[in-house]
Amino acid sequence: MEVDYTLYLLTDRKILEGKDLSRAVEEAIRGGVTLLQMREKEVSTREFYELALEMKELALSFKLPLIINDRLDIALAVDADGLHIGQDDLPLTAARKLLGPGKILGLSVSNVEEAVYGEENGADYLGAGAVYHTGSKDIAAPPIGPGGLKKIKDAVSIPVVAIGGIGLSNIHEVKETGVDGVAVISAILGSQDIESAARNLFNAWRR
Amino acid sequence: MEVDYTLYLLTDRKILEGKDLSRAVEEAIRGGVTLLQMREKEVSTREFYELALEMKELALSFKLPLIINDRLDIALAVDADGLHIGQDDLPLTAARKLLGPGKILGLSVSNVEEAVYGEENGADYLGAGAVYHTGSKDIAAPPIGPGGLKKIKDAVSIPVVAIGGIGLSNIHEVKETGVDGVAVISAILGSQDIESAARNLFNAWRR
Repeated sequence: MEVDYTLYLLTDRKILEGKDLSRAVEEAIRGGVTLLQMREKEVSTREFYELALEMKELALSFKLPLIINDRLDIALAVDADGLHIGQDDLPLTAARKLLGPGKILGLSVSNVEEAVYGEENGADYLGAGAVYHTGSKDIAAPPIGPGGLKKIKDAVSIPVVAIGGIGLSNIHEVKETGVDGVAVISAILGSQDIESAARNLFNAWRR
Repeated sequence: MEVDYTLYLLTDRKILEGKDLSRAVEEAIRGGVTLLQMREKEVSTREFYELALEMKELALSFKLPLIINDRLDIALAVDADGLHIGQDDLPLTAARKLLGPGKILGLSVSNVEEAVYGEENGADYLGAGAVYHTGSKDIAAPPIGPGGLKKIKDAVSIPVVAIGGIGLSNIHEVKETGVDGVAVISAILGSQDIESAARNLFNAWRR
């Protein structure tokens, strides 16, 4: 599957403050999001599964790939296009084996060592960060900055998506590192006008 | 795989108050536990995976089946002998499809309707309850009692394991319903002497 990593949206229902997830994601897609990742914590497996079915239908109708965060069981059950894992999730090699060769497998990395390991052990792309301080996720490690991001990008040949605190004010700086796209949560879903927020980011990247 | 449902131990690290899980489970097995289910909530996938690998090794060395609660991804990743799902987990048919025909699939039920659905849609056995009030899990529904348990057992032909508040004081009453075994947490793991607690339950069942 040909994947466009330009503008990668990670879902977060908390930030939506009760707004319907499907509706918010559809607005983001209309604004230019090219790839979707669904992340849910603290919900039952059944609820995650049912939300993922909704997202899958939406992704299909816009012909965008849907990636599931962490939960291989959900990814398999809804036949998602891929799985994204972090360093606290299933080991990369176990995930690749169970996911099969045809699905997209992403890995979160924060340094060159993890990135090289990912490339050599079955990751199709890397999520690299956190580039900047971010309120979206509890991250203990200090941000890697554009410098750390560039080191990761230069060390591997698979696509690298930057994540963490990225918005209109710094997307140009991020793009200059040579990465393949940006992953965002709050810069899109935290906006009053989700479609415009996505469009502004997309245009800023393409500029 | 031939499965003996007589004394089914569900793990719960909270009740162990810091005692090593493998050690506690090994003591329980020496006392007579015939089947293991590993249940973990609020841990990372990686931690669950690593604990499950430990449990798998232990189960193998004692030739007992290991069942994973809820998480099909973990069950697949450690090649467990089966999966146990509740009404808030993956749908039964999705779980069976992904688990394959050769693995054990259990379903939690609390009434005849759920039990019949389970038997007809791929469950190998049922966990029926809660029979009595229990402190081990937050269950909103009132206990089904030995009467409710017997109705479930009489309605299906697959094995039924009783769960919820079962101990030495009521195991005889539970056995009289005709069920195939009892599932316990605190009656074994909550005891100072885990091996003796398991042995006493096992002997009480066999008496």
